Amino acid sequence: MQTMRSYAEDIDGGRSPSVSMLSEVAAARKITIVGGSIPEMVPASGQLFNTCCVVGPDGEIKAKHRKLHLFGIDIPRDITFRESDTFTAGQEPTVVDTDVGRIGIGICHDIRFPELAMLYRSRGAHLICYPSAFNMSTGQLLWDLMQKSRAVDNQLFVATCSPARDPNSQSDFVVWGNSSLIGPFGEVLAAAGHEDATVIGEIDLSLIEAVRESLPLETQGRGDLYRLIDVQREHSS
Amino acid sequence: MQTMRSYAEDIDGGRSPSVSMLSEVAAARKITIVGGSIPEMVPASGQLFNTCCVVGPDGEIKAKHRKLHLFGIDIPRDITFRESDTFTAGQEPTVVDTDVGRIGIGICHDIRFPELAMLYRSRGAHLICYPSAFNMSTGQLLWDLMQKSRAVDNQLFVATCSPARDPNSQSDFVVWGNSSLIGPFGEVLAAAGHEDATVIGEIDLSLIEAVRESLPLETQGRGDLYRLIDVQREHSS
Repeated sequence: MQTMRSYAEDIDGGRSPSVSMLSEVAAARKITIVGGSIPEMVPASGQLFNTCCVVGPDGEIKAKHRKLHLFGIDIPRDITFRESDTFTAGQEPTVVDTDVGRIGIGICHDIRFPELAMLYRSRGAHLICYPSAFNMSTGQLLWDLMQKSRAVDNQLFVATCSPARDPNSQSDFVVWGNSSLIGPFGEVLAAAGHEDATVIGEIDLSLIEAVRESLPLETQGRGDLYRLIDVQREHSS
Repeated sequence: MQTMRSYAEDIDGGRSPSVSMLSEVAAARKITIVGGSIPEMVPASGQLFNTCCVVGPDGEIKAKHRKLHLFGIDIPRDITFRESDTFTAGQEPTVVDTDVGRIGIGICHDIRFPELAMLYRSRGAHLICYPSAFNMSTGQLLWDLMQKSRAVDNQLFVATCSPARDPNSQSDFVVWGNSSLIGPFGEVLAAAGHEDATVIGEIDLSLIEAVRESLPLETQGRGDLYRLIDVQREHSS
């Protein structure tokens, strides 16, 4: 993972070629970009974060999400990996108002935690974007399942964006691919395969209200039996 | 729904042919049975509940789950249905220790609420059983998705049991069927089709620990950012 450190970019210091590129494109096209994730270096502390920037049509950074749930797996005699050996976890859930709606951000393993999606829903997100890179085995088991269940449970849109698969990869880590856009019924609105692709999907935000009105999961829930606490919000109120 | 009232059984009053039958079979075979759901009548109040009994190898009722989340849908000019017109919602999540592990119970729409499954996990359930009857459209969209995501998110077993589909049904409500047993990776361990079937699946409880040790979602979670409150437990402690 030493490679990560050498690729890392100092976003807050304004020395990030990736963000500069996103910023130029966003401004030139007058669009909002949720820009995947890159290793972010904080020179003062030496910390590395796995970070996704959201850039607005003016080219400015509107939000910066640092991955909250670092991946770690330990299967004796097979695979041991701890992202926390290299990265520091972020401290803030990220919800950002954009010209195309309110977006919650998660990175990869963040999608495995239903609480984060629930928290984003309660903060009013219309769409949750998860830039991710699942591998072939977790991809097969979990990729579809996770994005659809986060969408369906919270009655909102979910978009995932993965690198394309490189079938000639010499690495142990072969990417699943299959970026998708999922609607609030769990329906697939657009999807890439495992190859490089540009996918265009349309989001009709009015569908969220329609789904929630016809099947009001929120009022059908049992706040008298369980309640999800949004800790930071609780403290700030 | 007047039919429901005429079929309803007085379980607490010991006048339930369904429970008597389950009890006889459980005692004769020395097995635990999670017995689907029936309309339960409480004569004193006139209330109806949608209720599932768990019967032990001694023939005694070990737990009685009254459906917590009543279904309701309102799609103008298409379908309007409110289970609460007929039934009263239960007041207690149900976790029961049996000779085959600790089982949480949910009925049908209860599966749509991730919080209930999370609460059962935190109360130590190894298996969540959801007797259910999804219809053809919710079945297609949600049946697989819901049971697999509850299993995967909570790293435990999930079993669903549905009536078989009657393709000659004159009713508007055609059942999806497809009862399944899902493992903690989201893997299908056993599954019926949509027809009448007896399905036998084996549950290796040690898999739960193995999965949780290799991928410790619980410790990877961010209790500093979100927390699910189990209200009744909170009050009793």
